[in-house]
Amino acid sequence: MAKAVLTSKSEDFPKWYQDVVAKAELADNGPVRGTMVIRPYGYAIWERMQAELNRRIKDAGAENAYFPLFIPESYLRKEAEHVEGFSPELAVVTHAGGKELEEPVVVRPTSETIINSFFSKWVQSHRDLPLLINQWANVVRWELRPRVFLRTTEFLWQEGHTAHATQADARVYALRILHDVYEDFARDVMALPVLVGRKTERERFAGADATYTIEGMMGDGKALQMGTSHELGQNFAKAFDITFQSSSGTTEHAWQTSWGVSTRLVGALIMGHGDDAGLRVPPALAPIQAVVVLVRDEEGAGERAASLAAELAGAGVRVRLDDRVDTGFGRRAVEWELKGVPVRIEVGPRDLAAGTVTLVRRDVAGEKATVALEGLGARVAGLLAEIQTSLYQEALDRRESSTVDAAGLDEVREAAQVGFARVPWDVIRESETDLAADALTVRCLQEADGGVPGSSAGAGLIATVAKAY
Amino acid sequence: MAKAVLTSKSEDFPKWYQDVVAKAELADNGPVRGTMVIRPYGYAIWERMQAELNRRIKDAGAENAYFPLFIPESYLRKEAEHVEGFSPELAVVTHAGGKELEEPVVVRPTSETIINSFFSKWVQSHRDLPLLINQWANVVRWELRPRVFLRTTEFLWQEGHTAHATQADARVYALRILHDVYEDFARDVMALPVLVGRKTERERFAGADATYTIEGMMGDGKALQMGTSHELGQNFAKAFDITFQSSSGTTEHAWQTSWGVSTRLVGALIMGHGDDAGLRVPPALAPIQAVVVLVRDEEGAGERAASLAAELAGAGVRVRLDDRVDTGFGRRAVEWELKGVPVRIEVGPRDLAAGTVTLVRRDVAGEKATVALEGLGARVAGLLAEIQTSLYQEALDRRESSTVDAAGLDEVREAAQVGFARVPWDVIRESETDLAADALTVRCLQEADGGVPGSSAGAGLIATVAKAY
Repeated sequence: MAKAVLTSKSEDFPKWYQDVVAKAELADNGPVRGTMVIRPYGYAIWERMQAELNRRIKDAGAENAYFPLFIPESYLRKEAEHVEGFSPELAVVTHAGGKELEEPVVVRPTSETIINSFFSKWVQSHRDLPLLINQWANVVRWELRPRVFLRTTEFLWQEGHTAHATQADARVYALRILHDVYEDFARDVMALPVLVGRKTERERFAGADATYTIEGMMGDGKALQMGTSHELGQNFAKAFDITFQSSSGTTEHAWQTSWGVSTRLVGALIMGHGDDAGLRVPPALAPIQAVVVLVRDEEGAGERAASLAAELAGAGVRVRLDDRVDTGFGRRAVEWELKGVPVRIEVGPRDLAAGTVTLVRRDVAGEKATVALEGLGARVAGLLAEIQTSLYQEALDRRESSTVDAAGLDEVREAAQVGFARVPWDVIRESETDLAADALTVRCLQEADGGVPGSSAGAGLIATVAKAY
Repeated sequence: MAKAVLTSKSEDFPKWYQDVVAKAELADNGPVRGTMVIRPYGYAIWERMQAELNRRIKDAGAENAYFPLFIPESYLRKEAEHVEGFSPELAVVTHAGGKELEEPVVVRPTSETIINSFFSKWVQSHRDLPLLINQWANVVRWELRPRVFLRTTEFLWQEGHTAHATQADARVYALRILHDVYEDFARDVMALPVLVGRKTERERFAGADATYTIEGMMGDGKALQMGTSHELGQNFAKAFDITFQSSSGTTEHAWQTSWGVSTRLVGALIMGHGDDAGLRVPPALAPIQAVVVLVRDEEGAGERAASLAAELAGAGVRVRLDDRVDTGFGRRAVEWELKGVPVRIEVGPRDLAAGTVTLVRRDVAGEKATVALEGLGARVAGLLAEIQTSLYQEALDRRESSTVDAAGLDEVREAAQVGFARVPWDVIRESETDLAADALTVRCLQEADGGVPGSSAGAGLIATVAKAY
């Protein structure tokens, strides 16, 4: 039934994506090119992402703070590679308070420059290190080809910024965030398997010594960079004079990291799990894990549905009661499918008379069961766990079956049209720039065993090549 | 001991305020005039405010969403009074992506215009109403006389925006937010008594029919507007064409509200409760309710302090362990006093040998007690409740003793130099503009019984006049 309301995924993937965004009421385009309005359901998903990420970030020892939106233009220029990378995307305030400003201010595209200007004040001694700061904020990058959630002029994100006494400490922390926060969140909350690796020199962040990444495969076989963690070396510490007195009394520049994920993750959710009926939200992420849908309010069904919802809430399920019986049942069922609520419980007078309800799982099309009211709480909890596992496995299977081991450049080009091509880095190292002509990029480098390489120069590394968002 | 580190309140209140902000590590000034960096401890307080407000806002039925930072300049002009009120404070982006923009975009000073342009799309039928939306966001108003937390070029806030079918529904909702969210939060979480009333026509929000307010008295007798809730009438509905089909089939313009509180509340916390030793944070708000301070790590005191902290955390207390024994004990005690942590528990080897710890309450200067380890959890919980009540009572007593019933304009002028002057509105109604010459304003109008008036035109109203931040 729901299939009619969306363009099919296989027919036109980009159109299907837009349809899901609109019909699941996730977002609208804003009036200024490339901006978006995140609607309540889309924002509820983002709030769940924030809560899960925030907990992991705090476990990694970082504290939240907030730095200004406006950065003096001169700050950007202090790190040469950084300003070169971001200049084409900047939005600039030239007038304020009815006057032209003496120095234009930039709307932050990322906050390395302004945050490190304060680190310079706060870091004096080795006892001030490590300094571990995270910020939840909006940032602006003027996009030529915007696409809602994936590439927007303004987006919401978290950006972590840290300073350490040694290069080794900074590296360990950048990788800790990559694995314990980002990979863990993608796998256990979003139910998305990710490649964890290192970016090539060509693809690393402007101003970093090394960029680490998690890369997901979307429903059309393309890659999506879902999060990055950078080793900044001493580049910003030198530009902003972040020095400390070491325990032996010498003055040293700090070693730094930065790392971030954004509302782009909502795009990953849509394209990683969505199907022809709409979104499919993994239970661990879902703002609504189960919806109790009242079919008709007759013979006490309304009261029973409400008490059932309360009972599930009491058992720790994030539940919503849909008792809008003025709206047709079919229309409401389609709405909850579009929104990807993992479990739907349909409560009608006929079922109730028999002591049962209808249980519908969203992840497997058409799977319905008539089940006893008795013990429903435990059954729903079990089903949610099963759906979480099943969505992960489905995404993993798709990635595995769409990944090809390629021996040379031609095989890479062919395989990367529809999925991931794995190829020895040594084979394509010199051809990386050529791949760009085919809109292909090296998504990441890994060790043969899947580990994250300490450098892109070593032998035996595997490159994964794909089209990407 | 702590007194030496701050300017005294009575000596120089503005300097004392700045000292507390700096030494409690709440915030720093940003490089662009009027902007601020909210440091981790200041931000932790804001996060607690957000959590408590968010819960109350959701209980009032509103859903969170996010709208763009950038608003086309033309949107601002659609509501005549609104653009007139905000024009002098706007920051304008004229260049982006390396080019001059065809239409400059404004950095939101508030979001009525952009949000209502979407309400116009989303509201079609009476069944779409009420539409209740809240947003947590940063906003920008170019300030000529910035002061950290109180009046900053960029600040963080929540802004609620709603649409209703009738004027009565909108009024009820505006007042519900005022009482059940703002007044409740100020009283029960911030431990600050507030006057709840109506703004005069002169003081209402640009574009509103009525503005309701909560007003607190600060430590120097001045007023601080802590939150406002507006009835927008049909002003924005007409400007943005928000219409709906009523149940009887007619087409009507919606009736609207908007309402907000901001990081200014951190300023209210400082000036409402702070003393010569620093901040005093009410336990219901405090990110750290109790700190366990290890005096010296000898004779197992370190382990005992850690287990005590774990025990308190298990009992639901937000607790921090301070085991930085490399830093002098006195210095650490001063730090926790500056930060206003309600309860300090000092754990040293000598005490422990006797089965005791030293319990220090922050709200009453110099109050220390040697108490048994046995039953400490319950004792701390009781003490936190007592401190919450006591801080509220102290603030209420100060307000009462600094409020004068005035009969005429001269008495008002005198009393309002050091506190609040209450005066019949009929007596000063014609002189409201004259008061401005003395930097005095009518903070709010109330019924004789303290109720919120339905209009400023009625007889028997009481005006409260004060200096204000």
